[in-house]
Amino acid sequence: MQHIKVLPNYLAKRLERWRKTTFEDNREWYSHLAEHGQHPRAMFISCCDSRVDPVGMFEGEPGDFFLVRNVANLVPPYSPDRELHGTSAAIEYAVTVLGVSHIVILGHSGCGGVAACYEKCEGAGSKLDEDSSFISRWMDILTPGYERIKDIPGDRAERLQSLEHESIKVSLENLLTFPFVRDAVDNGRLAMHGAWTDIGSGELHAYDGSLDQFRPI
Amino acid sequence: MQHIKVLPNYLAKRLERWRKTTFEDNREWYSHLAEHGQHPRAMFISCCDSRVDPVGMFEGEPGDFFLVRNVANLVPPYSPDRELHGTSAAIEYAVTVLGVSHIVILGHSGCGGVAACYEKCEGAGSKLDEDSSFISRWMDILTPGYERIKDIPGDRAERLQSLEHESIKVSLENLLTFPFVRDAVDNGRLAMHGAWTDIGSGELHAYDGSLDQFRPI
Amino acid sequence: MQHIKVLPNYLAKRLERWRKTTFEDNREWYSHLAEHGQHPRAMFISCCDSRVDPVGMFEGEPGDFFLVRNVANLVPPYSPDRELHGTSAAIEYAVTVLGVSHIVILGHSGCGGVAACYEKCEGAGSKLDEDSSFISRWMDILTPGYERIKDIPGDRAERLQSLEHESIKVSLENLLTFPFVRDAVDNGRLAMHGAWTDIGSGELHAYDGSLDQFRPI
Amino acid sequence: MQHIKVLPNYLAKRLERWRKTTFEDNREWYSHLAEHGQHPRAMFISCCDSRVDPVGMFEGEPGDFFLVRNVANLVPPYSPDRELHGTSAAIEYAVTVLGVSHIVILGHSGCGGVAACYEKCEGAGSKLDEDSSFISRWMDILTPGYERIKDIPGDRAERLQSLEHESIKVSLENLLTFPFVRDAVDNGRLAMHGAWTDIGSGELHAYDGSLDQFRPI
Repeated sequence: MQHIKVLPNYLAKRLERWRKTTFEDNREWYSHLAEHGQHPRAMFISCCDSRVDPVGMFEGEPGDFFLVRNVANLVPPYSPDRELHGTSAAIEYAVTVLGVSHIVILGHSGCGGVAACYEKCEGAGSKLDEDSSFISRWMDILTPGYERIKDIPGDRAERLQSLEHESIKVSLENLLTFPFVRDAVDNGRLAMHGAWTDIGSGELHAYDGSLDQFRPI
Repeated sequence: MQHIKVLPNYLAKRLERWRKTTFEDNREWYSHLAEHGQHPRAMFISCCDSRVDPVGMFEGEPGDFFLVRNVANLVPPYSPDRELHGTSAAIEYAVTVLGVSHIVILGHSGCGGVAACYEKCEGAGSKLDEDSSFISRWMDILTPGYERIKDIPGDRAERLQSLEHESIKVSLENLLTFPFVRDAVDNGRLAMHGAWTDIGSGELHAYDGSLDQFRPI
Repeated sequence: MQHIKVLPNYLAKRLERWRKTTFEDNREWYSHLAEHGQHPRAMFISCCDSRVDPVGMFEGEPGDFFLVRNVANLVPPYSPDRELHGTSAAIEYAVTVLGVSHIVILGHSGCGGVAACYEKCEGAGSKLDEDSSFISRWMDILTPGYERIKDIPGDRAERLQSLEHESIKVSLENLLTFPFVRDAVDNGRLAMHGAWTDIGSGELHAYDGSLDQFRPI
Repeated sequence: MQHIKVLPNYLAKRLERWRKTTFEDNREWYSHLAEHGQHPRAMFISCCDSRVDPVGMFEGEPGDFFLVRNVANLVPPYSPDRELHGTSAAIEYAVTVLGVSHIVILGHSGCGGVAACYEKCEGAGSKLDEDSSFISRWMDILTPGYERIKDIPGDRAERLQSLEHESIKVSLENLLTFPFVRDAVDNGRLAMHGAWTDIGSGELHAYDGSLDQFRPI
């Protein structure tokens, strides 16, 4: 494939340093992980956003977190229609093969995907709002969340944050539509969690299901 | 939602430590990123596997890498069928909104998704090979890669590594089926790269498109 | 303008090589930067000296460092007198338009500007010490630093190094006299740093504000 | 100074790598430069913009280029008024102390300072256009250049490029108002040059004084 270029030099140099430091420090553990496979305790589902790194934030050591990153940390509803469902495949693998104990949905402030959904639902229009847009379709998952916040007063920033919270709640709700997830939760093998992080301040709001609200921790 | 528990304590404690160290060290930069948005130079598409962390390996600073993580680092073919396509949505956002300069497909040794595809194609059978399996369907993306390696001699480990390499090549090929990716590559705005890492040894094999082969760097 | 000659050949040849190598390797990123503008994380203020290159020393990739280079890495005090202030203009642009997260004052050993200030303050006299000298006036910015070191014992080399350290401290002090700098620091949007490099040994001394001293890193 | 933080970690790590690679490769030459001082062949006056690095573009080895970087690569007119003139001080040092053979004014596409001047002259207004703005005052140096291009037809992009070219020509004209520069040029000890680089394409336009025009090289 003539179009494919060798890894750019700035990345190759960084990798070289990683090998001499982090990898060397963890050599025996990487060797173990290669031989014995992964046994992660938690699965995270977070956003692709370059400013949010769950591994860094929660000090993930190699082998700790099975990690999905997609636009706006969304879980689609269970849909066994034989179509391609990348996030659902990851959830299936984490729950039925790896048997993770936790699934954490991690949302964040300033989410571009959530903003695109907001603009579309408000009828503001954008180039992402075309029929051919994958983002527009993907963000439709969040439409039920918009319905819940649309009549709440507030300025744009407040309403966007509410919708970001909804991106977490909708995902948690959709998670429970997967029979194998429901079963694992009901049998005490799996706990589900939601959290939202503010990029600028580093604050984390954890979702409390019993109160149905987000609270700083 | 009664089923949702507050974030477990072991994660909350780690987060608290992150806030006092890494976040504090980068406070001003996080503040900038919150206000000015993200402008990442590269997009990575890598696996959910808990043992492979692109941000760590390539020393990603906050804001550096727009990151998709799905099972087996796969890109499906361009399919504007109005279905949900999470990975395609992320690619669209990265290329058309953020204008990233690089897309790196990062594969790895011991990939469970690739192994599941291998077993299925070899007719070995597994519980993932059922009609209702999301993983089974998702890994069908890699079938064209299996066709290319199926007649190559070698033991199981060698053949699995070849198929892991194919997971990268198939994704690169599929990337080029997206019109906006093709356009950006043809206009010198986007470069595509592939690499495979060995978990146990820390080695990286970079794909060289002009030679159509992987070579250690 | 008859006096202006076309770029000399030795520079044109080097540029040609840069275009075929470094530029080509980073073509997509330069294209991004041209279209999306600059979003540098840090501003450096360093000396014009040909032996000190902050971009090289700190491996600055294109777009990383907004960079002022003037004689002796000096920041003048805030002076809104409607006169021409080139360095103040650059600081204003970096802080109020670009929103950089870091300003690093980088001094160095063997600084000719610092030496000229030292000779003048010691009454040694030099041709730079004339009324008409721009350097003499410019280096007056450092006079408060000389006052602090003048009674410290030591040989000329030691005292010059102390004055070089002062060139960094005076600049940091002056930086804080700019209202928009002070405001950004107080609001956690901007961090200020000082460092001094030894040309011959490659050592770097970082300024630690809490201890008010330079320490090798 | 409590406000000053130690050098951020991401820069310290990069410096460490520089020391082990580039510095080590040039150790003897750095040692020489520390002992014998600098004897640069050329002075560059270029912009602070993070996307333009004269040392990289013209493959400057340690000791090659005495380098001023200020907003919009401007040289103010000779003004022996005993005020602070940082750029004039650097020119004085380069020409009268170091005796450089070349001064190159290097401009570039997408210059924020030039754009600010353009908006102001066109009466478009901006927050940089206030009395208290250092940038506004500094960019007044370019006003004579605007006068020359203001009646030339063209769209905004074409007119901005013309004004970027003028930033180089005005600086060259102002350089010749310095008696010691004029003297060095007249006596064949100093040659002056102008060039403009396009960030996105890597092209360089060299100024040809005999034709009074910029031409790609």
